Amino acid sequence: MKEISIGLLGCGTVGTGVAKILIENKELIRSRVGAVLKLKYAADIDIKRDRGIRFDEGVLTDDAEKVLDDPEIDIIVEMIGGVGIAKDFILKAIRNGKHVVSANKALLAAYGNTLVKAAAEKRVDFAYEASVGGCMPIIKTLRESLAGNRIISMIGILNGTCNYILSKITDEGMSFEAALTQAQACGFAEADPTLDVEGFDTAHKLAILNALAYGMEINLKDIYIEGISEITHMDIELAGQFGYRIKLLAIGKNRGDRVEARVHPTMIPFDNLLSNVNANLNAVMVSGDAAGDMLLYGYGAGMMPTASAVVSDIVDIARNLLSGTTGRIPALAWQPEAIRKIPVMPVDEIFTYYYIRFSAEDRPGVLSKISGILGENEISIKSVHQKGRKIGGLVPIVMLTHRAKEANVKKALAEIAVLDIVGNKPVLIRIEDEDE
Amino acid sequence: MKEISIGLLGCGTVGTGVAKILIENKELIRSRVGAVLKLKYAADIDIKRDRGIRFDEGVLTDDAEKVLDDPEIDIIVEMIGGVGIAKDFILKAIRNGKHVVSANKALLAAYGNTLVKAAAEKRVDFAYEASVGGCMPIIKTLRESLAGNRIISMIGILNGTCNYILSKITDEGMSFEAALTQAQACGFAEADPTLDVEGFDTAHKLAILNALAYGMEINLKDIYIEGISEITHMDIELAGQFGYRIKLLAIGKNRGDRVEARVHPTMIPFDNLLSNVNANLNAVMVSGDAAGDMLLYGYGAGMMPTASAVVSDIVDIARNLLSGTTGRIPALAWQPEAIRKIPVMPVDEIFTYYYIRFSAEDRPGVLSKISGILGENEISIKSVHQKGRKIGGLVPIVMLTHRAKEANVKKALAEIAVLDIVGNKPVLIRIEDEDE
Repeated sequence: MKEISIGLLGCGTVGTGVAKILIENKELIRSRVGAVLKLKYAADIDIKRDRGIRFDEGVLTDDAEKVLDDPEIDIIVEMIGGVGIAKDFILKAIRNGKHVVSANKALLAAYGNTLVKAAAEKRVDFAYEASVGGCMPIIKTLRESLAGNRIISMIGILNGTCNYILSKITDEGMSFEAALTQAQACGFAEADPTLDVEGFDTAHKLAILNALAYGMEINLKDIYIEGISEITHMDIELAGQFGYRIKLLAIGKNRGDRVEARVHPTMIPFDNLLSNVNANLNAVMVSGDAAGDMLLYGYGAGMMPTASAVVSDIVDIARNLLSGTTGRIPALAWQPEAIRKIPVMPVDEIFTYYYIRFSAEDRPGVLSKISGILGENEISIKSVHQKGRKIGGLVPIVMLTHRAKEANVKKALAEIAVLDIVGNKPVLIRIEDEDE
Repeated sequence: MKEISIGLLGCGTVGTGVAKILIENKELIRSRVGAVLKLKYAADIDIKRDRGIRFDEGVLTDDAEKVLDDPEIDIIVEMIGGVGIAKDFILKAIRNGKHVVSANKALLAAYGNTLVKAAAEKRVDFAYEASVGGCMPIIKTLRESLAGNRIISMIGILNGTCNYILSKITDEGMSFEAALTQAQACGFAEADPTLDVEGFDTAHKLAILNALAYGMEINLKDIYIEGISEITHMDIELAGQFGYRIKLLAIGKNRGDRVEARVHPTMIPFDNLLSNVNANLNAVMVSGDAAGDMLLYGYGAGMMPTASAVVSDIVDIARNLLSGTTGRIPALAWQPEAIRKIPVMPVDEIFTYYYIRFSAEDRPGVLSKISGILGENEISIKSVHQKGRKIGGLVPIVMLTHRAKEANVKKALAEIAVLDIVGNKPVLIRIEDEDE
């Protein structure tokens, strides 16, 4: 029986999950792959902690360099995270001619282009299915299953923490703070939740997906990012009255010679499947010119779901090794020479639907003044609602717009904000609707 | 630039879709694959019909044998359908050393084991992603993405015709006949709808998925099959009152040394994503020991979505050819020597929840008699409802049970059916609930 030797770097939550699958499902994997995937090393700075699995003698080590230098190791699995030592280890693994699996979206978003190039030059495989959407095979779907499609758009819920918090606020009336605390208690949120709740983690993932879908370099810096920390209970409730739920969405759209790439809280209609994706689950709706709309749904994080995706990469590479091939599919889904620098559309240039909430004085002429400014800025109003009670002499007014240009909306809001009949900063939430 | 030559057999709806993608997205596919996928032949008995695409000179032919015998052809794409000539052509293609792509679920369900063996012996690839779930990559997901998982269960809506009809009855109050007629008018149902509405098509697909998931031979004959033609409006409405929607489900569950394999109308709770899969869409929820629940959703049929999946198979094989490898992944996902004959559990032995509707006389003692018989058969009642008006002196009584054994339920119903206080045959619908 053939054997593929695996060196795991980082044996934290997901790393332990990977070890668990390789050990506990060893026979099952062998029946599918036709070879033993042998976990030769699991390296971690802490080798004393009880991980609830029985490692064979000598597998646990605190010497990552030994793993990287072992000529028997075929595949290095980087489960350290972060953009520091993880990057160095991956580059060293590549230099040593080893294939690499990683789930490190922050690293990929920042240095993916470099890592992919390095791997291609050394003719080793570099796989990262678990970096986006946990167990959902979104990367394989874009690289393989939709290979005949021009991708039109991708809309995803890609951060379980945010989705958990928004679900709790929406369904149980919790405050943002209480929901965040509960997410932390359940292990769905980090002690410092900034990366998640401010949308950065979602943006990392969108940068990766856009590259795969549209044949562009990974580009994080041009993604428009807005998190969920300023979403209020009032807006979630009002959204519900209009038939919408608020989700933190990653939106990547093909706009011909440009792409839209944005992450922000978004209202989506109840009958959109994405609005039924709750708790800490993830989903992504991909639209292809042939396939039409397709959705993947599953656990986007967590020990075992993420490990499941990591193991799928290990299996892919093992199958390549057993077939005597590498580089069967380019790491970024497109042939290197076909990858272009496609510009990201500035958010001011997008057209979409908007929900705008003002606090304004409740007297004649106010509405005509506000709608006048919107009209001058070419924003057509779909409906106006006076919702809720007077607060400090002001009433909440909600307007839903037809499709409008973001720059115009912002300009109008700035003009309206300085009116003395209007209270504090207007609230602006984008709407993603079917006919958009 | 390298070239892979493709011979298409059958240029009907899906075949034309495949040709369309290969021609119209040729450059895009080249940018991904690094080779030209050249449609050398499209064979059909009718070469005069306008298919809305410009074939190069000589591509359209009515001579399938010429295509099969052409030594330049690398991949044969069988888009004929049925179990007759399609099978002969596939076997000849294999004998001639050509790789084969097919979307023919009826053929796979009936002769898949033979075809797979023949392909393995000749060391050619045999791919059939489009046979189940149209554009959804359910076969790739089982063969590759979940390779590290023990699959626990699969629950799918795999027939667009049935789902369309049930959605129309549920949401628009249509009769079964009217919904079927509309499905036929929209091209979602065949002139003879038996294969779809009686559940056979769904069973073909389940036979394929069970083999891939559980490492067993394709086994169609032991699947329990019940179609949707006897579902009444009344039961759909009552289901709604209990928080359920009725869907035709394919259910494949891992029961250790056996599998459950059944196709029948099933009640599922509103908050199950599958209950929100409407119109002609398909979805399948797969549960793996590591991944947890994962759902794929998309168009399960139709020209372009099915063609999208066919092209993904062509691309997979092209990538194998360019890498100089075949048989990289066994066609049935497991190494041939690992495939077992896992017995299918007789439906009488399953345990599930039941909805039972009787028509009974509205007088004292009736309920105690019925519930007495259920009790004697070890069926515990969760709730009893008298619903709706008296019809012919009888009132409808609905009972929801706790988990019960199918054989016991059937025995009890047979005993109840002969009581003179009870009208015509009781209605029995299985319920698939989260805690099952």
